[in-house]
Amino acid sequence: MQYSKQKLSEEKVFKDPVHRYIHVRDQVIWDLIGTKEFQRLRRIKQLGTTYLTFHGAEHSRFNHSLGVYEIIRRIVDDVFEGRPEWNDDERLLSLCAALLHDLGHGPFSHSFEKVFHLDHEHFTQQIILGDTEVNGVLMKVHKSFPKKVAEVIAKTYENKLVVSLISSQIDADRMDYLQRDAYFTGVSYGHFDMERILRVMRPREDQVVIKYSGMHAVEDYIMSRYQMYWQIYFHPVTRSAEVILTKILHRAKDLYHTGYKFKHEPIHFYSLFKEQVTLEDYLKLDEAVIMFYFQIWQEEEDPILRDLSERFMNRNLFKYAEFDPAKEYKKHSELEALFKKAGIDPEYYLVVDSSSDLPYDFYRPGEEEERLPIHLLMKNQELRELSRESDVVDSISGKRRTDHKLYYPADLLFDDSTKRNTKKQIRSILELS
Amino acid sequence: MQYSKQKLSEEKVFKDPVHRYIHVRDQVIWDLIGTKEFQRLRRIKQLGTTYLTFHGAEHSRFNHSLGVYEIIRRIVDDVFEGRPEWNDDERLLSLCAALLHDLGHGPFSHSFEKVFHLDHEHFTQQIILGDTEVNGVLMKVHKSFPKKVAEVIAKTYENKLVVSLISSQIDADRMDYLQRDAYFTGVSYGHFDMERILRVMRPREDQVVIKYSGMHAVEDYIMSRYQMYWQIYFHPVTRSAEVILTKILHRAKDLYHTGYKFKHEPIHFYSLFKEQVTLEDYLKLDEAVIMFYFQIWQEEEDPILRDLSERFMNRNLFKYAEFDPAKEYKKHSELEALFKKAGIDPEYYLVVDSSSDLPYDFYRPGEEEERLPIHLLMKNQELRELSRESDVVDSISGKRRTDHKLYYPADLLFDDSTKRNTKKQIRSILELS
Amino acid sequence: MQYSKQKLSEEKVFKDPVHRYIHVRDQVIWDLIGTKEFQRLRRIKQLGTTYLTFHGAEHSRFNHSLGVYEIIRRIVDDVFEGRPEWNDDERLLSLCAALLHDLGHGPFSHSFEKVFHLDHEHFTQQIILGDTEVNGVLMKVHKSFPKKVAEVIAKTYENKLVVSLISSQIDADRMDYLQRDAYFTGVSYGHFDMERILRVMRPREDQVVIKYSGMHAVEDYIMSRYQMYWQIYFHPVTRSAEVILTKILHRAKDLYHTGYKFKHEPIHFYSLFKEQVTLEDYLKLDEAVIMFYFQIWQEEEDPILRDLSERFMNRNLFKYAEFDPAKEYKKHSELEALFKKAGIDPEYYLVVDSSSDLPYDFYRPGEEEERLPIHLLMKNQELRELSRESDVVDSISGKRRTDHKLYYPADLLFDDSTKRNTKKQIRSILELS
Amino acid sequence: MQYSKQKLSEEKVFKDPVHRYIHVRDQVIWDLIGTKEFQRLRRIKQLGTTYLTFHGAEHSRFNHSLGVYEIIRRIVDDVFEGRPEWNDDERLLSLCAALLHDLGHGPFSHSFEKVFHLDHEHFTQQIILGDTEVNGVLMKVHKSFPKKVAEVIAKTYENKLVVSLISSQIDADRMDYLQRDAYFTGVSYGHFDMERILRVMRPREDQVVIKYSGMHAVEDYIMSRYQMYWQIYFHPVTRSAEVILTKILHRAKDLYHTGYKFKHEPIHFYSLFKEQVTLEDYLKLDEAVIMFYFQIWQEEEDPILRDLSERFMNRNLFKYAEFDPAKEYKKHSELEALFKKAGIDPEYYLVVDSSSDLPYDFYRPGEEEERLPIHLLMKNQELRELSRESDVVDSISGKRRTDHKLYYPADLLFDDSTKRNTKKQIRSILELS
Repeated sequence: MQYSKQKLSEEKVFKDPVHRYIHVRDQVIWDLIGTKEFQRLRRIKQLGTTYLTFHGAEHSRFNHSLGVYEIIRRIVDDVFEGRPEWNDDERLLSLCAALLHDLGHGPFSHSFEKVFHLDHEHFTQQIILGDTEVNGVLMKVHKSFPKKVAEVIAKTYENKLVVSLISSQIDADRMDYLQRDAYFTGVSYGHFDMERILRVMRPREDQVVIKYSGMHAVEDYIMSRYQMYWQIYFHPVTRSAEVILTKILHRAKDLYHTGYKFKHEPIHFYSLFKEQVTLEDYLKLDEAVIMFYFQIWQEEEDPILRDLSERFMNRNLFKYAEFDPAKEYKKHSELEALFKKAGIDPEYYLVVDSSSDLPYDFYRPGEEEERLPIHLLMKNQELRELSRESDVVDSISGKRRTDHKLYYPADLLFDDSTKRNTKKQIRSILELS
Repeated sequence: MQYSKQKLSEEKVFKDPVHRYIHVRDQVIWDLIGTKEFQRLRRIKQLGTTYLTFHGAEHSRFNHSLGVYEIIRRIVDDVFEGRPEWNDDERLLSLCAALLHDLGHGPFSHSFEKVFHLDHEHFTQQIILGDTEVNGVLMKVHKSFPKKVAEVIAKTYENKLVVSLISSQIDADRMDYLQRDAYFTGVSYGHFDMERILRVMRPREDQVVIKYSGMHAVEDYIMSRYQMYWQIYFHPVTRSAEVILTKILHRAKDLYHTGYKFKHEPIHFYSLFKEQVTLEDYLKLDEAVIMFYFQIWQEEEDPILRDLSERFMNRNLFKYAEFDPAKEYKKHSELEALFKKAGIDPEYYLVVDSSSDLPYDFYRPGEEEERLPIHLLMKNQELRELSRESDVVDSISGKRRTDHKLYYPADLLFDDSTKRNTKKQIRSILELS
Repeated sequence: MQYSKQKLSEEKVFKDPVHRYIHVRDQVIWDLIGTKEFQRLRRIKQLGTTYLTFHGAEHSRFNHSLGVYEIIRRIVDDVFEGRPEWNDDERLLSLCAALLHDLGHGPFSHSFEKVFHLDHEHFTQQIILGDTEVNGVLMKVHKSFPKKVAEVIAKTYENKLVVSLISSQIDADRMDYLQRDAYFTGVSYGHFDMERILRVMRPREDQVVIKYSGMHAVEDYIMSRYQMYWQIYFHPVTRSAEVILTKILHRAKDLYHTGYKFKHEPIHFYSLFKEQVTLEDYLKLDEAVIMFYFQIWQEEEDPILRDLSERFMNRNLFKYAEFDPAKEYKKHSELEALFKKAGIDPEYYLVVDSSSDLPYDFYRPGEEEERLPIHLLMKNQELRELSRESDVVDSISGKRRTDHKLYYPADLLFDDSTKRNTKKQIRSILELS
Repeated sequence: MQYSKQKLSEEKVFKDPVHRYIHVRDQVIWDLIGTKEFQRLRRIKQLGTTYLTFHGAEHSRFNHSLGVYEIIRRIVDDVFEGRPEWNDDERLLSLCAALLHDLGHGPFSHSFEKVFHLDHEHFTQQIILGDTEVNGVLMKVHKSFPKKVAEVIAKTYENKLVVSLISSQIDADRMDYLQRDAYFTGVSYGHFDMERILRVMRPREDQVVIKYSGMHAVEDYIMSRYQMYWQIYFHPVTRSAEVILTKILHRAKDLYHTGYKFKHEPIHFYSLFKEQVTLEDYLKLDEAVIMFYFQIWQEEEDPILRDLSERFMNRNLFKYAEFDPAKEYKKHSELEALFKKAGIDPEYYLVVDSSSDLPYDFYRPGEEEERLPIHLLMKNQELRELSRESDVVDSISGKRRTDHKLYYPADLLFDDSTKRNTKKQIRSILELS
């Protein structure tokens, strides 16, 4: 039998706390889950450093990837199947793209991408198209299949309906992570009636649309997303851990380029430092490897690398203050000067971090990132953009919210054994008592 | 103010998915949580290799330790406070013992203890009594305080009521882990009405007893425990991962003692191999460190170490068959011989694993491990042992259940490129088709 | 198109707190739900007087009937469909029998059946077969269809597989009510993994069997049932309300037969008093009607009817004591005599109530009620009776548990305005202080 | 001991599905729950006719009243106690007002108030101040106590802090019903982090304020409220049942005033018809009584009363269409004329129903109903009105949303046995096919 049609002799199920069970019938999906590139996602946390704020948030990207797959499976098997607008030949492609959409994520992606100029989407493409077990499985479907999967994930696939299932303002990715992250952190945000949303999804030529009767469930989803961003994803304590993490990588890279001699050779980092990371190098990176180095860097000679590593390992984080970069640049300069005077390198210890989110937007052609709006399918079969029907969504639509904070090591500033007066001045500016 | 009485200016809360919130008012508790030895528990999974079977089970011992603390806090503050049988001076001691009871756990404790002859309870004592941040905090309470905390955890403390809060057949430890492990795996076992149980707990001279009106809630708890053991903790797939893990450690140790030259020096393992692990060595061990070595051992020369490491990292586990050691020892010898003939070392690839549990027991003096029974407080103020009142508990009381399985690498046995006939014979004995 | 095959143009859903959604596609089911006999179930509480103990238990039999239907729908559509042992022609029959299985229940069935010698199963048959809207819908399927539905519910239908779906020791009825009653009362018992049980159900010639791998989920279900019976269904306070209710009906009937002149004619009760209840009479009975009479009986001349009605309406219930009928018959006679002496009619105010349950049983031919055991489907395709595989189930299997209580009006016994000494004696015997 | 200080010898608990347990220690509260006026709330549904749309919504006002009490108990005992701004003498008053705030509700309040010009708040006052068991209990506290309780509920009590606990835009009443109604209907709206909100509530001189750090939890609560109104409370099917109910009452009243001779004397309705309802009359009304009459009115001579009663009892509701009273008055007149021509009385069968809600508002002096805004307590101890800090709340603040619908009996309009052409015209205007 054709590999793409092969079913397991008995359905396999994964017990999942969010979707109860994840069901696998397709041999292709089963084989993909078994590849080492996919298993690697078990060693990368879904929410990076968030576990230092919400201790339950220790779940991996493996978890989330199965969840996205399951949502798509329910849509295509329970809702779309048999509808004229849906081409069932796209079923397996949709399932594979769902399962593999985050495959290129590395450990603590955000910080690594920033410091080492990586791009996880680039690696997702490479893993799917390169010499990997995943590619081997996909090739067995058809030699053109890996390319198609890669295109869906890159949003360049011609059938935009399939693309919008995986990536849009109401896609399976978001629906899974909002619920999953809420479940593992334990917060009460993040609940919305996904079952209802799935039931009112309808395939259209170039997008998934939502029957009008499901508008309130979608409003609830948009509000969940909004709350999760500001309550969980941009939590200032998480950002503090992220700041420290970024500065550790930064410091290690700087030391390398200035010829510093590490006690224990950071062999896994060399290609990162040189910014010449091959696929093979990349696939060896996971959080265990990174944490291993942070562990041993606690014993490095360099005081900054050592201190920052200790902070991260022992959760001795930076404190923060509100900061307005537009108005307070002078204050910032002043603080920089005082930090230097106090012997605390502001490059590593006085950090402005900004978070910004656009909770929902309609289509604005020509904008940097053109966002596909959510369309409601009205009773008369017309489509209406969501924010035109929903007051609540309209109220937050297109409104970017940004938050700036200034991070600093309060413990050092209160250590009066040296530079007492300078530190007192700093504390006074930061209004620390 | 006396350190032991110091309260935080504002109560701190941790969002917890199991208990909703974990509340901290005591400065001592806050300081203990901040120590690096306690933070280290974030890097050790509560359920070891279980995440390879139940993908949600990625939660750490840090999580669980906070949970046990919170349960004890509710008991002593909401239920026991003010009762004549309860001495409020034991409050802080109980809280500290609850928080720290698992402090000595290392990565994948079970396997490590077996192969390297360690004892996590020994290290818990060492961390509390030795030169650590935890000890520093406890000493600030009183110089005799660390010893008391250690004694409660070791069950040697004179006030047996305090001991029984932390370690008994219905202690805060079990109540937390059953619920927590159920939550993270997503299974429906593990639910019982803890709030009810807490409300009917009463302090007695040497133990916690349960008001008779709460008997059914306790029955439910005992049944939860029973189901969790056999459905989750002893799941045969988890045990397969555990078998492989143990064999990796075993192989590495053997190689070391035979002078094998590792490509990458396993410096963190040397003291383990020599079975001379200092507290300092031990505290550097966490799962990241171990996984780092498993990662690089995938590139070792030794084919067994390499193969087993790859299996663990990529979740390519052993299959299993039922096995009765008492009756099937001959079959086992035969298989051993055939494995050798097929070039598959039975020492590493043909493994009998046994799990055994005693779900509840009344007191049997003189038994190896004397277990304190659960006592019900009857209306007439007499105490009655639980299994005398509950049919359900009586039915499983004292009945040890044991399960034996034989683990083997099915993939190798189906690889007919070599030793075809021998493998066929093996498969026939194992009834593989 | 044939009526039995007609589908609604768009699936209808009912939001259900237990099963999330109840899905209806079949026109027949939709039409049955709309009949007045089925809507009448909204006016009959699922748990009778239990709401006087657990205030959340106000849900109706309408609720539960939809739930049983939904479970059967999932079994036949998601699990059985396409299996050779399952005849899809039985699908609609199974759904209808599920939906209608409780149709003949009246208000407070238990008490009414006892006092007026009714049988709700008899009325279920009558409603299905008589001149009703329900019968009209079923006849449209086929003129033999009502009879088939009635037979399935009466367990006389020839295809025993269908019968066992609706009525067995692990049927859809029990699975719904355990979960539903747990949900509405808010207790933590009553949880079991129904989704798992459904997935491992397999059709066999004359019964539903359970794949061995689901044994633990079934154990959990049996234990849930056990706990729900003793914690909820037989709660002594609920039984007190039941006792009073029975005595009200009893008194009204006695008064009627002694020619008592009611202030307000109890026209709805006449056929009950005469024990000549037609289908038409019966269908007019619901809890509103009964409660209406209890309301006005609070103003009756007869002091006993008035008092008991007031007690029920205002939840002024009887207290209770443990009672052993075998050993304490003398005490009972003594109390009776004293009650009479105190002017409190023991016929109505000194009541022994017994509850008894057999949590699970294997097949015992010749027993009064032959119970079909639960069979496990072993890997070798053999069937094994559950209690032979499960220790836990074995422990409670076939063990009938009975509880006797003596109910009395504590308030009257403490009213010392009359018969002071006699009441003191009574209180002394009942050990009231 | 003073009655107001008396504690039960053992705390009583009610199992509650929303708050887990409801705890009662005060003798006064226990006695109030036992009064017949309070027990009467068991016979009045919290959500009136909503159970005809969401079948789970069968819970009573008794349920909700206990819930509001429990929330206030947690606020005053766990959060406010000991704070200088809180006077603990107001504790019992707050608890009593919470428990009794809905005491005057009758069956299907909304419709009854409209047709018979009643006011449930008036009866709440009467029950508390009149000759009732409730008044008897409150008098035992102090002879001025009933008046105080009544004032708190009427919002005229001088301590506005106490008033705002019970009645404000974020009071215990709303927090309970949103969660409770969500639980019983089973919808996923209605969740917000109440535990968090309670923890950040702070007493101020004349109101409860919310610490700034809890703003997002409050946003979530406001959005929950918004969704619950439009998804549950104003559901068009529920409104259809409400329309029919109102029209039944209307018809019965009209018949009475035109001298119609009822088959069965509606004695409970006479005082309603005359609009001279005494407290004694009122307390006899509950849903059972009303439903009893609807039951027997199905056999009345008058075809309209009979038909409407049948519709309500058997859930044969009106259909609806969108309607804009401002623009479509002509269409309405036209329909009225056609209905008359078709022999369908438009007074009872062509009904415009409007729902309107203001989700949140800041203070607008001079407005009809002045609403107290929610104030945030900023870090600098200033108060800021919520909508000034929250974009989301600002977006819906002060925006009244109104919905109009036109209800009609689709079944009659499709009955072509009479007036075929007129009905066809009507259907054409209503766009029914």
